[in-house]
Amino acid sequence: MKRQIAVIGTDGEIPERVRRIAENVGREIAKSDCILVCGGRGGVMEAACKGAKEAGGLTVGILPALEKSGANKFLDVVMTTSFGYARNALVVSAADAVIAIHGSIGTLSEIALALNYGKPVIAVEDSGGISAEVRKLEDEKIRENVVSSKAPEAVPTALELIT
Amino acid sequence: MKRQIAVIGTDGEIPERVRRIAENVGREIAKSDCILVCGGRGGVMEAACKGAKEAGGLTVGILPALEKSGANKFLDVVMTTSFGYARNALVVSAADAVIAIHGSIGTLSEIALALNYGKPVIAVEDSGGISAEVRKLEDEKIRENVVSSKAPEAVPTALELIT
Amino acid sequence: MKRQIAVIGTDGEIPERVRRIAENVGREIAKSDCILVCGGRGGVMEAACKGAKEAGGLTVGILPALEKSGANKFLDVVMTTSFGYARNALVVSAADAVIAIHGSIGTLSEIALALNYGKPVIAVEDSGGISAEVRKLEDEKIRENVVSSKAPEAVPTALELIT
Amino acid sequence: MKRQIAVIGTDGEIPERVRRIAENVGREIAKSDCILVCGGRGGVMEAACKGAKEAGGLTVGILPALEKSGANKFLDVVMTTSFGYARNALVVSAADAVIAIHGSIGTLSEIALALNYGKPVIAVEDSGGISAEVRKLEDEKIRENVVSSKAPEAVPTALELIT
Repeated sequence: MKRQIAVIGTDGEIPERVRRIAENVGREIAKSDCILVCGGRGGVMEAACKGAKEAGGLTVGILPALEKSGANKFLDVVMTTSFGYARNALVVSAADAVIAIHGSIGTLSEIALALNYGKPVIAVEDSGGISAEVRKLEDEKIRENVVSSKAPEAVPTALELIT
Repeated sequence: MKRQIAVIGTDGEIPERVRRIAENVGREIAKSDCILVCGGRGGVMEAACKGAKEAGGLTVGILPALEKSGANKFLDVVMTTSFGYARNALVVSAADAVIAIHGSIGTLSEIALALNYGKPVIAVEDSGGISAEVRKLEDEKIRENVVSSKAPEAVPTALELIT
Repeated sequence: MKRQIAVIGTDGEIPERVRRIAENVGREIAKSDCILVCGGRGGVMEAACKGAKEAGGLTVGILPALEKSGANKFLDVVMTTSFGYARNALVVSAADAVIAIHGSIGTLSEIALALNYGKPVIAVEDSGGISAEVRKLEDEKIRENVVSSKAPEAVPTALELIT
Repeated sequence: MKRQIAVIGTDGEIPERVRRIAENVGREIAKSDCILVCGGRGGVMEAACKGAKEAGGLTVGILPALEKSGANKFLDVVMTTSFGYARNALVVSAADAVIAIHGSIGTLSEIALALNYGKPVIAVEDSGGISAEVRKLEDEKIRENVVSSKAPEAVPTALELIT
């Protein structure tokens, strides 16, 4: 069974720098023979899927709604749901490790749920957003289970943390 | 985007005849270049996934629990959840059409949820179980949206019904 | 802790006869000092809640959407969700027993999910719809765990079946 | 329809100081004629429910599992689910406003999900834990929608923010 890595982060408009980070992370996930899982939409999710597909990987998107509209065009498997933001729980429960890139409150909910599920979280610190900030929280479980990483180290770090 | 067909049916021990039907349905799904979605466990799900993999297809299993134990060995993508039987809603919400083979109350919940989601359901009448019985219910939505089919016609019927 | 009984059945327009059955069931639930749980909307749900409130009971509605619109006006506790039809799983998982009145595919999904969760189901046979039909299915788990009942016996039967 | 306020925070052992804060918040919710919604378990949830019941309020607990074990003894309505930590989404989706007391990663997931759902969050800053920390995150949506409050002001602030 292949390992599955979730990429979480900002939907919609993202800075070019963040887009490149996400594409590279997606590419590395595919090159490492892992499956990319995400929330299926735009921004970081789309860029990561684009990178993964360029490297011949497999991508899975878990959408909040029953409709496929809003899905990015780099998805192999499209999981439509009717769960709204509760689909965030599914994105991280389905992963062996979670890589956070940029992001805001949606990403924060996924980081926190991943920790509840006992999944390792790699926060890409140089991507900005919540991913650069979450370790400001001095909560013990966050300090122990969210690993801060530079972008090029995110996937290798995830692979090490998958038990 | 490839079409996604869910195969639902009995977990655990199944008669040899049912196993063959499920394998064939899985094989036809793969040959039709569709992705097979299922509940990820044994019985009908495992047999369908085995058929799909023999024909080079892609298989997705949505498990009720966070643990991968209980997953069949023919899954490419393993979606662990923590939703228990409520994962049944996800199996059918993720599909463009649903094929029911044999089955009992779990399968019945998936048939009913699929109808609620507006997904076409193909009940394989010669597989027995709930799939042979569900059209005994004279409910109008069941009569209109559950199509009874012989095993060899199940996948062609599903493909016709996917809009 | 008070016992909780779910009333499931047709949303929207219902025949006067069904409305009376639902009101009486709701009233009996309240008189038996049980909490009424339902999907929070109209039709059977609304009538049952009306009956329960007339008898001084407590009513809980679990809605499919985040918005309170669509909630009937006889609810004490309104659980808004973002789960769509998957909220059907919540309606029955929250109950000690489930009473089905009339109904169609939504009700069928709730009956089947209740059986998966190991909850006793009382189908009010003289209310018509799926509730009058479900025992046509010869599935062993349905025959053993769905009890057919005349309307006046529904609540006493539920109380007996709650362990 | 009564307003519903969720109290979220640490399960299990909590400092005496936090217990008193939670009890007082629960008491104020009841005195303000609001329904208290929570995750149904111990620690902050139990203390808040105790306070609410002492003031004659109504309490609702949404449990992660199908079993009632683990429910605190101050609950009027017990919603058993099979959703695991995804029940956190339900706790906040059911509330008109959310008050966070102390807490760790479970509470953080609920704060973030509440913000996704557009619910106002009041973080009791003098309770410690995540509630004292969350506004360290400079995310705009957190800064705008999480209000920091001293314990005695938490319920009045929530009432003001409920539209």
